[in-house]
Amino acid sequence: MNLDLSVVLVEPKYGGNIGASARAMKNFGFSKLVLINPCEFDKECYQRAMHAEDVIENAKTYSKLEEFASGIQVVVGTTGILNLNEKAYIRNPMTPKELGEKISSTEESIAVLFGREDYGLHNDELTLCDLVVSIPTAEEYPVMNLSHSVAVLLYELSLCKLKVPQARGMNKVEKEKFLEMFDKLLLSIDYPEHKYENTKILFRRLIGRSMPTAWEFHTLMGVLAKSVEYAEQCKRKDEDD
Amino acid sequence: MNLDLSVVLVEPKYGGNIGASARAMKNFGFSKLVLINPCEFDKECYQRAMHAEDVIENAKTYSKLEEFASGIQVVVGTTGILNLNEKAYIRNPMTPKELGEKISSTEESIAVLFGREDYGLHNDELTLCDLVVSIPTAEEYPVMNLSHSVAVLLYELSLCKLKVPQARGMNKVEKEKFLEMFDKLLLSIDYPEHKYENTKILFRRLIGRSMPTAWEFHTLMGVLAKSVEYAEQCKRKDEDD
Repeated sequence: MNLDLSVVLVEPKYGGNIGASARAMKNFGFSKLVLINPCEFDKECYQRAMHAEDVIENAKTYSKLEEFASGIQVVVGTTGILNLNEKAYIRNPMTPKELGEKISSTEESIAVLFGREDYGLHNDELTLCDLVVSIPTAEEYPVMNLSHSVAVLLYELSLCKLKVPQARGMNKVEKEKFLEMFDKLLLSIDYPEHKYENTKILFRRLIGRSMPTAWEFHTLMGVLAKSVEYAEQCKRKDEDD
Repeated sequence: MNLDLSVVLVEPKYGGNIGASARAMKNFGFSKLVLINPCEFDKECYQRAMHAEDVIENAKTYSKLEEFASGIQVVVGTTGILNLNEKAYIRNPMTPKELGEKISSTEESIAVLFGREDYGLHNDELTLCDLVVSIPTAEEYPVMNLSHSVAVLLYELSLCKLKVPQARGMNKVEKEKFLEMFDKLLLSIDYPEHKYENTKILFRRLIGRSMPTAWEFHTLMGVLAKSVEYAEQCKRKDEDD
């Protein structure tokens, strides 16, 4: 699915942060950048955007947040300041993961607001927000760089959209063959009977945890099969002797 | 629990990226920065580090990756290049979330390697790695800024810091013994020379992904050792014939 999501930078002070945020947007497959009363697009802005110049060039600029936000269905604020005072309900935030789950099935238009490098979002801006989200950080130094916040949040939101392509995993039939071959190996090396069942379970769990690919399955089957073959030959020779 | 995790920047070219990475580390509660053959710590480096100057000042510098990596139990590589060819197992990566789950219960020392801004990690560096992780990105523009990659990965790992430790994992010495024994097995079954190196790497990765316990190590060592013994006996008998 495609989220209809705008990234809104409210009064950013450094062109470099606009550029770096644009790059992070393109990295995670988002393209709608909105700027509220921004600084100039300086050289640093374009340098740090790298191949996301198009995001900068298609950015929409407004002088006031309200002008833009009134057309958006779900407005999400971000804050780095965690206020545990219950009365500060405005800043009682959800995690990026919770936000991702919340919006993954929506077709509404969403805007995520990121505040100024120094003061974040003002209270009247947070009041406009339907949701507030905060990235969990270390108490000692919770203030993140603006484009880092954009990158981390979009990473989490993109997980509802993007998956890492993976090599095909070993399927059920292959797994059973693999376990059978391991079983054969245990028998062929005269593995002690009292350990036999436990070792089979141990191997099944190990394989379950490592989730081999089909390619790994074929390679390791080759190694196991050859080991069985040698062990059996060895025993046949013993019998012949 | 606290992860014993080092962030390793391999040959970073821009001081600003070192500084910004240090800031992201401190934001997510990590402090061990390691630099392999880095550029100078310029003004930009300190500016972008903001209140993470201490991370920069305590950073350890090495001229070669091997000097540092040999003392680390789990070496994790990062790559932005996804190769869907199953045979290219070196770059068959896990997601940051999977990595977080994998290492959340370990007490081993972990190093996460981030490559050069332009070329990432070289193949010989990836060969050293027990695990490879990749941040899922948009196909159109998958190349992230270095400090953004650091921020996103540490964000995900920081979510997993507080978990119950499980059974003691296989330690580095045990792991090396295990890999050696597998190597011995390949030799004892006359494994084809042209597949030998790749199969060794495949096995290292598989073990890296499954993180065996000490108990699993001892059990499987028994199976491998016995297999080697039979294969060698078999060959000795062949010679005798």
